[in-house]
Amino acid sequence: MQVKIVLVETSHPGNIGAAARAMKTMCLSQLSLVNPQQFPDPVAFARASGAAELLENSQRCETLQEAIADCQRVIGVTARDRKLSAPVSAPKPLMQELITQYQGLKVAFVFGRERNGLTNEEIDLCHGVCTIPANDEYASLNLAAAVQIICYEWHVAQLVDKHAAQLPKAPAIAPSGEIEGFYDHLWEVLGKVDFLDKDNPVPLMRKVRQLYDRTELTSAEINILRGILKSIEKTVD
Amino acid sequence: MQVKIVLVETSHPGNIGAAARAMKTMCLSQLSLVNPQQFPDPVAFARASGAAELLENSQRCETLQEAIADCQRVIGVTARDRKLSAPVSAPKPLMQELITQYQGLKVAFVFGRERNGLTNEEIDLCHGVCTIPANDEYASLNLAAAVQIICYEWHVAQLVDKHAAQLPKAPAIAPSGEIEGFYDHLWEVLGKVDFLDKDNPVPLMRKVRQLYDRTELTSAEINILRGILKSIEKTVD
Repeated sequence: MQVKIVLVETSHPGNIGAAARAMKTMCLSQLSLVNPQQFPDPVAFARASGAAELLENSQRCETLQEAIADCQRVIGVTARDRKLSAPVSAPKPLMQELITQYQGLKVAFVFGRERNGLTNEEIDLCHGVCTIPANDEYASLNLAAAVQIICYEWHVAQLVDKHAAQLPKAPAIAPSGEIEGFYDHLWEVLGKVDFLDKDNPVPLMRKVRQLYDRTELTSAEINILRGILKSIEKTVD
Repeated sequence: MQVKIVLVETSHPGNIGAAARAMKTMCLSQLSLVNPQQFPDPVAFARASGAAELLENSQRCETLQEAIADCQRVIGVTARDRKLSAPVSAPKPLMQELITQYQGLKVAFVFGRERNGLTNEEIDLCHGVCTIPANDEYASLNLAAAVQIICYEWHVAQLVDKHAAQLPKAPAIAPSGEIEGFYDHLWEVLGKVDFLDKDNPVPLMRKVRQLYDRTELTSAEINILRGILKSIEKTVD
């Protein structure tokens, strides 16, 4: 699935630049600007940081229709629930669905104006609406921040399979014999430094065992811990 | 789970303001600023938009230690894989895990400098590292954009986990200040018994920290461990 990010009548050039940067961090490059209010502009390039080429290669359109003409699916990103006819989805499940259904095809994500979002006529051009879950009392995400989240969710959905294959191996947890050897050594040293209550050492030993059992010590860690015990013994003896 | 966002030595006040806005859109409010380079500043308030109160109520700290002292878990957010000893997680699975394990507790997410991120010493203070999946060739997320993604993932995970309130309570995991107190005590005693390699103690200390960080010590357990340390000191002195 290819992704095109469409920004409709953006007011602030800084937001266009920041959106380009957000896209590039998530491996996206197709940016379409519908009637931007102030572009090109040095502020856009400054905020784009290392993503200037996305601005240089961006598509300039007069209308949303033109921007989405080459897309098989068009998703409007809106902040609020506005009694819409189109189905509203959260980004995560939507991305999974799109990636499965639109392999090799192009999907547009359309972002409206900083103050007013998308008009109802523009939303009518969308096949679905995506709303980023947010604070009911302050859902005012910055435009580039919303672009960042959508691009991130696309990137993560793409990576899910790869990640599963690359999960780190479990560390080599030490066998029980080594762990018991450490405990025996520990009780011995605790006796030497008069820590254990000689009449009733068991409850405390249980608590200490519980602590180390929970951490699932590796053999390398047991070597470190026993090294510490030996140093204590040498100093005490 | 409460969330504190910690920004370390941020250069641009605009990023501080944009981070505050990002937090408020996702229902978060605890912002801690470690030695910001230019703050307070009108640019920060302009970019915060309707989230100025987060800036006004932000905690100002001289050191990262101070900022995280009241947090039971500390996660460093870093862009690159840097041969770290701490376990590295992606935001989504990490949030699910944290929300389940840290009910009623406070988790800090620590963000470094715009140019250089976090130092290795700062990462050593973290119990885990979170890396936002990004373009390998351009992982340069804007600071506020990274804050937006982390806050978004927290918000989404909260919404998903509606049953969180019914789950059994997490054990009383000790706050970072207590754990650091234990480590300080431990280094002192390891010095006294000549265990540490004086020329190069850091790699070993990191391994020991990793072991105990993983086990999520409770306050009661820290009391036991410090009791052991005191007994060793008494015998050695």
